[in-house]
Amino acid sequence: MPGPPGLSATRAPGNPLLTPEDVAPSRPDFEVIGVFNPAVLVDDGETALLLRVAERPRDIPTEEVAAPVYDLAAGRIVVRRWRRGATGVRTDDPRAVIAGGETHLTSISHLRWARSRDGLQFQVEAQPALEAAGETDAFGVEDPRATRLGGEWWINYTAVSPWGIATAAAVTRDRRRLERRGIWFAPPNRDVTPFPEAIDGRYAALHRPMPEGLGAAAIWFASSADLGSWGGHRPVAGPRPGAWDGAKVGGGAPPFRVRDGWLALYHGVDAGARYAIGALLLAAREPWRVIARSREPVLAPEAPYEREGFFGNVVFTCGAAVAGDRVRVYYGAADTVVAAADLSLDAILGGLA
Amino acid sequence: MPGPPGLSATRAPGNPLLTPEDVAPSRPDFEVIGVFNPAVLVDDGETALLLRVAERPRDIPTEEVAAPVYDLAAGRIVVRRWRRGATGVRTDDPRAVIAGGETHLTSISHLRWARSRDGLQFQVEAQPALEAAGETDAFGVEDPRATRLGGEWWINYTAVSPWGIATAAAVTRDRRRLERRGIWFAPPNRDVTPFPEAIDGRYAALHRPMPEGLGAAAIWFASSADLGSWGGHRPVAGPRPGAWDGAKVGGGAPPFRVRDGWLALYHGVDAGARYAIGALLLAAREPWRVIARSREPVLAPEAPYEREGFFGNVVFTCGAAVAGDRVRVYYGAADTVVAAADLSLDAILGGLA
Repeated sequence: MPGPPGLSATRAPGNPLLTPEDVAPSRPDFEVIGVFNPAVLVDDGETALLLRVAERPRDIPTEEVAAPVYDLAAGRIVVRRWRRGATGVRTDDPRAVIAGGETHLTSISHLRWARSRDGLQFQVEAQPALEAAGETDAFGVEDPRATRLGGEWWINYTAVSPWGIATAAAVTRDRRRLERRGIWFAPPNRDVTPFPEAIDGRYAALHRPMPEGLGAAAIWFASSADLGSWGGHRPVAGPRPGAWDGAKVGGGAPPFRVRDGWLALYHGVDAGARYAIGALLLAAREPWRVIARSREPVLAPEAPYEREGFFGNVVFTCGAAVAGDRVRVYYGAADTVVAAADLSLDAILGGLA
Repeated sequence: MPGPPGLSATRAPGNPLLTPEDVAPSRPDFEVIGVFNPAVLVDDGETALLLRVAERPRDIPTEEVAAPVYDLAAGRIVVRRWRRGATGVRTDDPRAVIAGGETHLTSISHLRWARSRDGLQFQVEAQPALEAAGETDAFGVEDPRATRLGGEWWINYTAVSPWGIATAAAVTRDRRRLERRGIWFAPPNRDVTPFPEAIDGRYAALHRPMPEGLGAAAIWFASSADLGSWGGHRPVAGPRPGAWDGAKVGGGAPPFRVRDGWLALYHGVDAGARYAIGALLLAAREPWRVIARSREPVLAPEAPYEREGFFGNVVFTCGAAVAGDRVRVYYGAADTVVAAADLSLDAILGGLA
């Protein structure tokens, strides 16, 4: 029997590959507090990462609290400010401010390109590639995934707003210019990973609705004729109480084809809020059917940059580069930095049950 | 100025039109505890209601708690039983039992036809028309809406299961046999009301995702080329804090065409958990755009059968029959009985702002 597959992960010697210090803020009054959870696009000898960059307003007096938000009337991101302790202003959760019954977030994320020839040393672009620009992403855009379909890369990302957390699509041909294509799944949804080819004539994706009240955070399957409208919803996999993925699960890297079906790296959260990465083997023609699943994580938080940060004890992947037996996973660590680790495909498959 | 439009509602003299006593249980070991929230299908001089019928197991010893659930392996609805107070068994909420970390519901709903020639006196069929039959409706089917599209009636209903609360479709040509057409919107979603015609070449519906954490229970728009896959999601209307619809809103009767756009009866919940009915006027070609909205409810719980029951202080419509100025609203009252009230279309429109 193989040992725990988590042991076979080889972290990049340069980890973390990118930190907030490597990223210029998008405007002088903002500071970067996290760079993490990148989409991965490999083509023409280039590895492009589409980074999630989280920023917050800087130089806010300690007696105030600030929240960046896209203002529809102004047509740009503005910074709203409130005095802490004022009537109707609640700041118990440092990530949010509730004012006049409305919730705002104290940071905002955009997407930004970084590029590399060797897949390990990245140049980060100076400006955002996609940022809050409307009613349904007024609180920012997060956690992109990229899937190549024909000559296009389809990006799906999280669009956060007072309407909730939806998932939206964008497309790029040149791995530079992103064209928005609207919402794919209404709130509350996240973690959308399209498959890289049509299956029985329909495009396919995993998605992660977030039931309220009844039901747990589980991975679902959906299909589409046109990459615009989605149907054929079927549940795929839920949390396994007591296990490493006992509290929540959600898609990670877009699925890729292996001999016996589709391999989907996913994230699992345990009862202690530890985020780890495992794998699902899905049936080739019925990708909503789970053939096998990682007994233990293939990657779990161990390194200091994974255990400590804005949200510690988190490894979270949105994309991988697969070459032969090597699965190079790019991942966000502690919601603060970007890291990479090489896994053996054989070891991942050997750890399924 | 017209008076409060709620005052113009004329309740049917025979209200409640249907009570649990009017409905035979679907099996001898069940009792009917509610008949409410019917879809409305008017054709050939017949008013058909597709009722939600809620049942629970009868003759359960007081020291036990029981939950009906569709068992996939057995291929039928079975009754699970637990001893109250046993380790890992929680029964604080009478509507649910949590056992071994899993939530079950203590009642289960199916859909059943009732028919009338005059729209007021109904004959209820002896058997369910649609009931729990799979993994994603194992806890029952609820709250149907019916929309005529060409020669077919499209029914959308709530499918409840351990995977959450999804919405599913069924179709009927004869207002008798229902053919399932799969899930339209993944959990958590409810209150799907399709429009009765395609708009700019696409079918359309309102739906009501239920955001968790960020966002409120708001009405959204979506469109479809094939009544199978849905896209084009746009937010339509959220709750208005402090108003009669300040806590939650959701679709009610399927929208119908009026001179200035689409009129959609919807439900609003206030801070005191009172469910009332109001109207949205939506733009004809852009039905995600709200032109006007009821200042006050067009129907609110007042009658004893609306104020008291399984869940009191609730009027909730899933369908109406419109003829000239008369809007006959069929509605569930207190999650227990079916009632009807006639409203004046002019009065509804006069109460919009």
